[in-house]
Amino acid sequence: MTSAEAKEGRKAKPESRSPQALPETPDAAIAGKLKKVLDGPFEETKDEIRANLNREEALPQVEGTLEEIRAGLLEKVKMIGETGMMQTAFSKRNGGSGEAHLGINGLDLLAQVNDSLAIKSGVQWGLWGGAVDVLGTDRHKEYAQGAMNLTKLGSYGMTERGHGSNVQALQTTATYDPETKEFVINTPSPMATKTYIGNTARDGRWSAVFAQLYTPGVEESHGVHCFVVRIREEDGTPCEGVTIGDHGHKGGLLGVDNGTLTFDNVRIPREALLNQFADVDEEGNYTSPIESSNRRFFTMLGTLIRGRLAVGAAGAGATKSSLAIALKYAHQRRQFNTGDENKEAKLIEHRVHRRRLIIPLARTYAIQLLQNKLVQRYADQTSAQASGEWSVTDPTPKQADAAREMESLAAAFKAVATEHAMDAIQEARESCGGAGFMSENMLTTFRADTDVFVTFEGDNMVLLQLAGKNLITAFAKELENPSPMDLVKFAATNVTDIVRSRVGLGTAGQSVVDTFTSEEASLFDAEYQLKVLALREQLVLRSLVRRIQSARKLDRAEAAKVVDGAQDHLVNAAWAWIESLMAQAFIEAEQELPEGSTERAVIEQVRNLFVLDTIIRNAGWYQEQNVLSSGRVKAARAAINDLVDSLGPWSEVLVDAFAIPEVVLDRPMFKDGGTDDSQGKEAWNVGSNISITKRYGEDKGDPAEHADA
Amino acid sequence: MTSAEAKEGRKAKPESRSPQALPETPDAAIAGKLKKVLDGPFEETKDEIRANLNREEALPQVEGTLEEIRAGLLEKVKMIGETGMMQTAFSKRNGGSGEAHLGINGLDLLAQVNDSLAIKSGVQWGLWGGAVDVLGTDRHKEYAQGAMNLTKLGSYGMTERGHGSNVQALQTTATYDPETKEFVINTPSPMATKTYIGNTARDGRWSAVFAQLYTPGVEESHGVHCFVVRIREEDGTPCEGVTIGDHGHKGGLLGVDNGTLTFDNVRIPREALLNQFADVDEEGNYTSPIESSNRRFFTMLGTLIRGRLAVGAAGAGATKSSLAIALKYAHQRRQFNTGDENKEAKLIEHRVHRRRLIIPLARTYAIQLLQNKLVQRYADQTSAQASGEWSVTDPTPKQADAAREMESLAAAFKAVATEHAMDAIQEARESCGGAGFMSENMLTTFRADTDVFVTFEGDNMVLLQLAGKNLITAFAKELENPSPMDLVKFAATNVTDIVRSRVGLGTAGQSVVDTFTSEEASLFDAEYQLKVLALREQLVLRSLVRRIQSARKLDRAEAAKVVDGAQDHLVNAAWAWIESLMAQAFIEAEQELPEGSTERAVIEQVRNLFVLDTIIRNAGWYQEQNVLSSGRVKAARAAINDLVDSLGPWSEVLVDAFAIPEVVLDRPMFKDGGTDDSQGKEAWNVGSNISITKRYGEDKGDPAEHADA
Repeated sequence: MTSAEAKEGRKAKPESRSPQALPETPDAAIAGKLKKVLDGPFEETKDEIRANLNREEALPQVEGTLEEIRAGLLEKVKMIGETGMMQTAFSKRNGGSGEAHLGINGLDLLAQVNDSLAIKSGVQWGLWGGAVDVLGTDRHKEYAQGAMNLTKLGSYGMTERGHGSNVQALQTTATYDPETKEFVINTPSPMATKTYIGNTARDGRWSAVFAQLYTPGVEESHGVHCFVVRIREEDGTPCEGVTIGDHGHKGGLLGVDNGTLTFDNVRIPREALLNQFADVDEEGNYTSPIESSNRRFFTMLGTLIRGRLAVGAAGAGATKSSLAIALKYAHQRRQFNTGDENKEAKLIEHRVHRRRLIIPLARTYAIQLLQNKLVQRYADQTSAQASGEWSVTDPTPKQADAAREMESLAAAFKAVATEHAMDAIQEARESCGGAGFMSENMLTTFRADTDVFVTFEGDNMVLLQLAGKNLITAFAKELENPSPMDLVKFAATNVTDIVRSRVGLGTAGQSVVDTFTSEEASLFDAEYQLKVLALREQLVLRSLVRRIQSARKLDRAEAAKVVDGAQDHLVNAAWAWIESLMAQAFIEAEQELPEGSTERAVIEQVRNLFVLDTIIRNAGWYQEQNVLSSGRVKAARAAINDLVDSLGPWSEVLVDAFAIPEVVLDRPMFKDGGTDDSQGKEAWNVGSNISITKRYGEDKGDPAEHADA
Repeated sequence: MTSAEAKEGRKAKPESRSPQALPETPDAAIAGKLKKVLDGPFEETKDEIRANLNREEALPQVEGTLEEIRAGLLEKVKMIGETGMMQTAFSKRNGGSGEAHLGINGLDLLAQVNDSLAIKSGVQWGLWGGAVDVLGTDRHKEYAQGAMNLTKLGSYGMTERGHGSNVQALQTTATYDPETKEFVINTPSPMATKTYIGNTARDGRWSAVFAQLYTPGVEESHGVHCFVVRIREEDGTPCEGVTIGDHGHKGGLLGVDNGTLTFDNVRIPREALLNQFADVDEEGNYTSPIESSNRRFFTMLGTLIRGRLAVGAAGAGATKSSLAIALKYAHQRRQFNTGDENKEAKLIEHRVHRRRLIIPLARTYAIQLLQNKLVQRYADQTSAQASGEWSVTDPTPKQADAAREMESLAAAFKAVATEHAMDAIQEARESCGGAGFMSENMLTTFRADTDVFVTFEGDNMVLLQLAGKNLITAFAKELENPSPMDLVKFAATNVTDIVRSRVGLGTAGQSVVDTFTSEEASLFDAEYQLKVLALREQLVLRSLVRRIQSARKLDRAEAAKVVDGAQDHLVNAAWAWIESLMAQAFIEAEQELPEGSTERAVIEQVRNLFVLDTIIRNAGWYQEQNVLSSGRVKAARAAINDLVDSLGPWSEVLVDAFAIPEVVLDRPMFKDGGTDDSQGKEAWNVGSNISITKRYGEDKGDPAEHADA
């Protein structure tokens, strides 16, 4: 990082400043080759799901009363149930295939079609079903199977009004009563009301309720545990002692029936405790194979890791559909003359339009390629756990560290994918103008439905801080949930080791860049790019550690203030880390394509665009730290324009590679949105869903003739 | 710009690096003093409107069928009609007060309460009414008055399916028939269908239709003109030859009934031409007091200037309400322990939370203060025009330039205010977590309703390019709508003059910074800040001019490509310009507060935060251009954290100064969202709108007692 770069007065070699422009006429056949890279190891299962989802009935319903929309969504969930796509994620013990990772890809694909459907499915199979499957044992088989076959609709009763992000502080209690051999579930205060619980206001009959576990003779809670609680009778009336509230209308996901739950000393059998990681015997003795209560807590939250990967994937799914819709429109719609005075230019031919869609598209590729890596890693982990090679309750130190890193990866991936979804879907909507605002073209529904993704399953800002803290502690298992003081102490004693010990994606150990000597390298060189991003990751982390370390002589409260003051720094560190991993995943994936091929040239430009945009997002920082010279940053800026120009004609091929189910792309604006003369002569109203209230004067002639008048 | 700055190895003086921290305990009385600055010259009229709007019935309706929501909104519009607030904007001739600018403030305040209501009101009174009022003459009095008193509901029939942003290319025709003394309005192709027209699908009886005007014996169109066309009979059936379509469900503004209009040779009287700026006599001779057809077109689009200011103001209105809601929540809601192990910290006490809300808050102040300037300037212009001092049809060269500058100001203001609305409302929503996603807390409705603001009344990206082009031509009237070649020629011949001729806000001429020698100045010095922003404005413009000038030897098509390639540069130039004006307006406004007073200290910190954030948004550019050293940029970054820390306790006072109608701030989450012990003991469900479907076990005791169990 001595940055010989900074001295760069010399001009870089011209060839390193501009990318080689791609042919102006795109080759549609490339889409299939790119699709293989994007689908990665999951192409076959994804294609099966795509075929299942390619139906009109799967699309979101936006009109109607809340009750109609909710009822309609439940029918769609049943339709998904019949495909079997979500049940494969369950363990073999419960009749699934044990491929938990398939649920993550499933959410991605569902979200490409209908995000309400994705989330309600996710609650039923992933959260309710997942909790019972993962935290339960053989005695809970009926619940797992009921979740799978939809005879038991259920919810995930974690969040409380008072505590959403801070799960360890939940207040609902589960007190064991040895006399009746029951747990008593109770809501001690309004703040302990279970809140925003999906699948609850209308449909749920069961809930996986998280509560502080108390046993006789032990004053302190054993921590948060999960219990199966019946909340409604079969006929839909709430069970005795259970009060169910309805959140009513929300900013999106209208069909998902979010509600509240309060428990007035509701009695459930002892066996309702999901006892994979802790149990209470008939006498009320608490046992757990995991000694540390902190470790136990995080083990039980394991479902959240899958949930976070799935929510990130769902955000990415909605992003892919939105960009596909907007880019296809941009290749058709014309507005404003440029060079040719007789014909308006296609939107994609305008520079600003290319920038606003193709830059987010490049990032979407990067997210997909990281997602593939993470899903594969998650699959490997769960399969090792299923085979017994990897004990969940007693992992080797290396496994424990890897599990911790997986938590961070899921947290940061969820944050980066869902934040990108907000930005990219909004750009897609705006770049379709008024048509983009019509619900029939789906973009506003994607936007509204995915909005809550940035705060549920863990608020992004909290998740990024979590990931940032884990970077400081280098995922050491003894620091599962570090207090501010823990962080300070750890930083103070381990400062030199921390930056070196990073392990990357768990594939090839990523080398630490000690000095940055590549100032002569091309901006388009993959290795150079990786170094530039990795260096940011390391420098931000190093300065964060120093900053936190500075609190070592302060008292507890003052030290906590320093850590709190470093929140934005923690967030930056996590961002830099995950972006570096995105680039790494991208570069690895592109190597699957033959060198020298057109498809390789295309995907390399997409990667260049992603990396250079990431650098420019941090253009200030790179110069402040003397990592990049102003000349190099300017060159990166210019290269971005060259890249969007080069990729412009190819951008439809790039979204075709997403293989979005066709029913999603059958939007009315494609049939009536162009401004070609040829289109102007088309028959009237061919595509639009606009309902004509009344047409007068039709006797004057057929509308199609009218068009020629 | 020689940038002695760049050499800065010396450390800046410490006092220039950190702001003086404000007292930790805020003074609530400051809110009233800040309110005076924010309301500016309009305090009295705004307070009247606030009182009128502070009622439950004005709030948005989110649930129900589309028909119910639309019907409900029409009733709300009638309620607004009774207050008379929107009618004052009409000319004295038609019975208004001639204070057109009041409609802009009116939209701001309406949008603080209900954006659907703001937009439907804006269509009825501002667009339909405004077109008739401004473009019509005495013979159109009945329409103006019908628009005012709601006996004539109408729409603004401009946008077509094929042409939204490119208004000059509209295809609807109005052909004069001297035999019957009528115009024949016709839609020649599906692409010419009037589209997204508000107040049309359900309620409108009339429309101000924009069409190419043809007269006998003249082959070419006289350009786009506006006609009053009846579209429905009183009973609601479409008029003969008029086909009305319904866009149905949209991404927001659900109550606004957007529809389509097609005309099958619909005959309207000759007098239906709004003939303020052009007329056709009985024989079919066309006359206009404005010779240039281009100039005539832009004069007729004058209503759009007011519309754009109003949409910008409406975006700012929704932003103010959203930030007020989110910041008040942040001062109440607690989550996560920091220093104090027994009590969780308020959200506002977390650094990340302060950053995400207070930085947008500072920008919101800047937008408000610019808005005040622009509304005042618009008021001065319209009043001079009404008095005859300023002829609309034959202005002095200075007036013509000023009018052109006003167009650019309105365009850029609309863009900056609505883009900010998207970002800030989203931050507000996210920072309230799950509660922010519940419609009862209003944030998602603000977000969804304002979404289309960024593309309607002119797409922001198009408007910014328009403003950028006007900067190049220095608002010269002969270049009203410059072709790419015009731009190139102008840039080639006027390059040295362009940057110097900028006239600023029309108040004190803003001096051009020739060299930048203030490296010793404090980051918190207002004059220094202004120079830093103005320098960016000028340098971006200068490099833009050079870039475009480079095309002077190319042929027309190639030159157009160069201009198209400079689109992002045009956008940057417009951004830099408007941000510089925001800072200027801010600094002028803050001087109304007594020096040395607490209120002055507070508002100065808000301005510091706005300016430093604007600099950091362009941190890369400032270093690339050697305008700021890396040390100075780092200092600005650090100062932003210091400023949000200092302003944190004051941030509730800062939003109280917006004087949002109280009914908006009466959100359920304020009653149940904290996590204080005291709140935990409160009675159950005091505030939430959650509907309890059924409560079992109520006989076991009163819920309020239950809370203490």
